[in-house]
Amino acid sequence: MNYADRQQRLRRVLLESKTQAMLVTHLPNVRYLCGFTGSSGVLACRLGHYPGGIQCAFFTDGRYTQQAREEVKRARVVIANKPVLSAALAWLAERRYARLAVEGDHLTLAQLPSIKKGLRRGSHLDPTSGLVARLRMVKEPDELKIIRKAVLLGASLFDVALRKIWPGVTEASVAAEMEHAARKAGAEGMSFDTIVASGKRSAMPHGRASQAKVPRRGFCILDFGVILAGYCSDMTRTLYVGTPDGRATAMYDAVREAQLAGIDAVRPGATAEDVDRATRAVLKKARFDRYFTHSTGHGVGLEIHEPPRLGEKQSDLLEPGMVITIEPGIYVPGSGGVRIEDMVVVTERGCEVLTPTTKDLIRI
Amino acid sequence: MNYADRQQRLRRVLLESKTQAMLVTHLPNVRYLCGFTGSSGVLACRLGHYPGGIQCAFFTDGRYTQQAREEVKRARVVIANKPVLSAALAWLAERRYARLAVEGDHLTLAQLPSIKKGLRRGSHLDPTSGLVARLRMVKEPDELKIIRKAVLLGASLFDVALRKIWPGVTEASVAAEMEHAARKAGAEGMSFDTIVASGKRSAMPHGRASQAKVPRRGFCILDFGVILAGYCSDMTRTLYVGTPDGRATAMYDAVREAQLAGIDAVRPGATAEDVDRATRAVLKKARFDRYFTHSTGHGVGLEIHEPPRLGEKQSDLLEPGMVITIEPGIYVPGSGGVRIEDMVVVTERGCEVLTPTTKDLIRI
Repeated sequence: MNYADRQQRLRRVLLESKTQAMLVTHLPNVRYLCGFTGSSGVLACRLGHYPGGIQCAFFTDGRYTQQAREEVKRARVVIANKPVLSAALAWLAERRYARLAVEGDHLTLAQLPSIKKGLRRGSHLDPTSGLVARLRMVKEPDELKIIRKAVLLGASLFDVALRKIWPGVTEASVAAEMEHAARKAGAEGMSFDTIVASGKRSAMPHGRASQAKVPRRGFCILDFGVILAGYCSDMTRTLYVGTPDGRATAMYDAVREAQLAGIDAVRPGATAEDVDRATRAVLKKARFDRYFTHSTGHGVGLEIHEPPRLGEKQSDLLEPGMVITIEPGIYVPGSGGVRIEDMVVVTERGCEVLTPTTKDLIRI
Repeated sequence: MNYADRQQRLRRVLLESKTQAMLVTHLPNVRYLCGFTGSSGVLACRLGHYPGGIQCAFFTDGRYTQQAREEVKRARVVIANKPVLSAALAWLAERRYARLAVEGDHLTLAQLPSIKKGLRRGSHLDPTSGLVARLRMVKEPDELKIIRKAVLLGASLFDVALRKIWPGVTEASVAAEMEHAARKAGAEGMSFDTIVASGKRSAMPHGRASQAKVPRRGFCILDFGVILAGYCSDMTRTLYVGTPDGRATAMYDAVREAQLAGIDAVRPGATAEDVDRATRAVLKKARFDRYFTHSTGHGVGLEIHEPPRLGEKQSDLLEPGMVITIEPGIYVPGSGGVRIEDMVVVTERGCEVLTPTTKDLIRI
């Protein structure tokens, strides 16, 4: 991972906004900028006449002494003997700055007083939004390598599910086998609670695997992903238990067509909203659009949900190297639902679908 | 679960602080007050001349239509067609209030502008800390029943680990077997990333199971828990691979003695700090106190870490029905570490240890 380059890109963004210091508190952002993978610590960065023009220090507590020394790159490691936030602010205040950027999406109102207290006198606090997250949108080649592996590992769990799922087994037991296979294959964990939503439960877009038994008839949505070397995978497929009637077939076909239209709309220069419109248009034509109750997709990387968001009014321009999901769905309350989701990487001319799994309707 | 009683207790706390409205945004608190288990939604509560004196409404988006209707108790369900925060604020603003309590630990600086915008004119915003979390400290009998089951399920995974762990296996493969067993036994998931930290890695208090192989000699810390019906379990045991020398034995004995001293200090009327002091005193006597780099324990319930925190300067009084961990440890960087952790429930006269597992040093 090229931490030097990442910190340089941060420096450029800060320079553009005439900001001389930044406090990074969101852990995936801390990891991105200096490599720390633990669950407590903040990164402070200040611009100035340093080699490279940016200097970073990582602050954590005694629980992470060893881990921080092993992992942190391109930042001094400080084991703080006071709250890490105060220690980091004190370090930043050693040099003059006019504006201090903080992560407005990840600092709480409760933290505000201690931040104001640690702010250098006469300086301005600037709550930014998505500043580092946006640096993370375009993936480096090293990141793409890991993401490809994570996607393939994730996809292999679908085959595990197909071997284990039949009417009468609990959704949770299917998830158990998938998660076990993931760990055995080297995953650090699942990237979110595995969704196995069968029968009427498939009408819940976020139906985590429950003790409910897979019924003899109806859709079953499987939505799952792994974490491999810190990077997330994410995919969804929908099965049918029994023989689908005309309505079920129409639902499935509409979602598949919408998903393919979404993939087709992904290209550099398209906006995130363009892709969302493409899937929605297909579902509208099939008169299912009112059952499509979420956005078309999202970025994936160190976090399962990261920018860009593929939804209404999202003007982010797609760029080569972005990794996003395309996942339209239909959810008919009291009846059932369908979702199909791939991960794709934006290329120079369009996109490459990373998820290798068939989208034909599998019946069991 | 007694949602009516919980809302009444919230009402009393709000009345005491002369607050007529509250916006609950932290999901475990939302769940506690109205039963919703999904991953997006807010609860708004207002006091007044209603039956019971408190009226609540739960706001979520279209993804949760079905789930909210099934799960939410004692609150009106509103599927918002605008951001849920704005919708909830608009509902609250229908009635006069002088002060609106929000959860300062869980609202971000980025959310502040929209909250200020939705605030009723002339009213005051009050960022509270731990208000609902403190209502959750003393568990109801129904909660204790589930917690007991979760603890026993969690403890059964230690036996799984003992069967699977030997020199040369990866830490992750041990975690895989434990997690699989948890799912098969009905757990919804693990309550945190399973820690299997062997050899020198045992000096990391938070050493998540990695691809490292268990070495032929040294400590191995296992720290893990399950989620059952929403409630977390948490326990730690430390094994020794090979034959411990005098130093290793002294470390283990000191931690065990400290842990027992901690349990002994738990009783109604003791402060959280008293228990922390009790474990620390034992480690100080054994000259290991500088290697004890975290606090002695924490509350457990719907969240793996919740109040009270058993650490320095924590003046919370222990009360019957509180469920806490007692988990002193020693971590010698570059060498290894030991931690022993039980969950206990505070009783009328002391406490009951919920974790049934032996604390004798197990060698493998």
